[in-house]
Amino acid sequence: MIADLSKLCLHTITTKPWAIEVAVPKYAAAGVKGITVWRNAIEGRDLAKAQKLIADHGLTVVSLCRGGFFPSPDAAERQRAIDDNKRAIDEAAALGAPHVVLVPGSHPRQPLTVSRAQIRDGIAAVLPHARAAGVKLAIEPLHPMYAGDRSAVNTLRQANDMCDELASPSVGVAVDVYHLWWDSELAQQIQRCGSAGYLFAFHLCDWKTPTLDFLNDRGLMGEGCINLPQIRGWVEAAGFRGFNEVEIFSDLHWAKNQDEFLREIIAAYERHA
Amino acid sequence: MIADLSKLCLHTITTKPWAIEVAVPKYAAAGVKGITVWRNAIEGRDLAKAQKLIADHGLTVVSLCRGGFFPSPDAAERQRAIDDNKRAIDEAAALGAPHVVLVPGSHPRQPLTVSRAQIRDGIAAVLPHARAAGVKLAIEPLHPMYAGDRSAVNTLRQANDMCDELASPSVGVAVDVYHLWWDSELAQQIQRCGSAGYLFAFHLCDWKTPTLDFLNDRGLMGEGCINLPQIRGWVEAAGFRGFNEVEIFSDLHWAKNQDEFLREIIAAYERHA
Repeated sequence: MIADLSKLCLHTITTKPWAIEVAVPKYAAAGVKGITVWRNAIEGRDLAKAQKLIADHGLTVVSLCRGGFFPSPDAAERQRAIDDNKRAIDEAAALGAPHVVLVPGSHPRQPLTVSRAQIRDGIAAVLPHARAAGVKLAIEPLHPMYAGDRSAVNTLRQANDMCDELASPSVGVAVDVYHLWWDSELAQQIQRCGSAGYLFAFHLCDWKTPTLDFLNDRGLMGEGCINLPQIRGWVEAAGFRGFNEVEIFSDLHWAKNQDEFLREIIAAYERHA
Repeated sequence: MIADLSKLCLHTITTKPWAIEVAVPKYAAAGVKGITVWRNAIEGRDLAKAQKLIADHGLTVVSLCRGGFFPSPDAAERQRAIDDNKRAIDEAAALGAPHVVLVPGSHPRQPLTVSRAQIRDGIAAVLPHARAAGVKLAIEPLHPMYAGDRSAVNTLRQANDMCDELASPSVGVAVDVYHLWWDSELAQQIQRCGSAGYLFAFHLCDWKTPTLDFLNDRGLMGEGCINLPQIRGWVEAAGFRGFNEVEIFSDLHWAKNQDEFLREIIAAYERHA
């Protein structure tokens, strides 16, 4: 139960059918206070105009999603990823986003240990650019079902370890309940994450049983089996004071009338988050 | 690269279209040495006849699959699971299987911590029956994508911890690469598992990218991204001398001519395991 919407942030991808020009006024009218901007939502847009649109509606830009995808057996591909992450950092700076969320990446044709080293090296390579731009980087550990092709960082422990290794106040973690809820070490690693100053972002949705699609069958809060108030409690006990970001990829919800879906999100947030 | 088939075991579910009366002679003719019997394969059969069929073809019964599924919010359901596990133990004894593989279970309407306690208590409840029957119990940690409804034990560390807690020579672990390959602690936990005497079984298949189905899209060895020789090396270095059990659930492979699939399995085993 959350009594007010002051910490509610939506990811633009959650209401994917809406262009950002539609989403921003809808979010604001519904009482949403924060927005996490996905890069597809600003493709081909004037960033200063997008930033003004968001500011004019009183929304806080919480994150830019997403950079990362560093690993590849091909050095030229790795360089392309580094260049693209620098562009993402510039976009975040232009929008006033305090950080870029990094989906670490993985590659099925090389060992996880190699991919992990390339993630660390990729972050290190873009870090000076991020610091110069005043933008932080939030490593998002992804569910182990994505270890083959999307993330070789699959637990909060690994993400915390990588932050320890990189040892920069500009590098932290995005904690997403969908990816991490199953982990028996979660409470302990959230505490560690907060104590170390790594806890940059907190993402909400739910895990449905059964889940029908590996990417686009996330649940609205309350539709699944994640104990959201408990995890949010751990996050807040670890000192987190940021937004609760609703990030739902769902063919089912995207197929709905999005005004109706937005009302459902807010009701679910108040009742189940 | 494995030079001979002396440690090759197939799970009957791998060639699901074949009844056990078909599978056993086919396996033997192909040079397979071990068989893990799934309970659906012996449903309605005379177990003494099944045991004789297997023995007459020179196959070793490696495991019975599967017991477990202990958690439920409903006490009567939990008792039904315990009773069913006792039947599985009796079936294993009748077939000469040294252990029953346990899929721990999970229930989406209760916390993982509760499910984990019920798994531990369920195993403890059937343990005297198992010891009396001379049958061991192998806890199989399942991939975190099954945490909602199939297993609240999702890492080898958790399974090892549960073995520590139960502290019985009759309780160990089945290590399945499909469930555990992503874990950055895997080498270390396999070493621990072997040293403690918990390493009862080793299951092989592969993780495809992309994987299209949560249950029935496992890969044949070499079709995916798991470094099988490396993991097998860890298992053998931990002292394991048992069979390499090929366990593949795959709508794609089940749709094939199973004689052809069996030839592919053997070729893939020799080349990629």
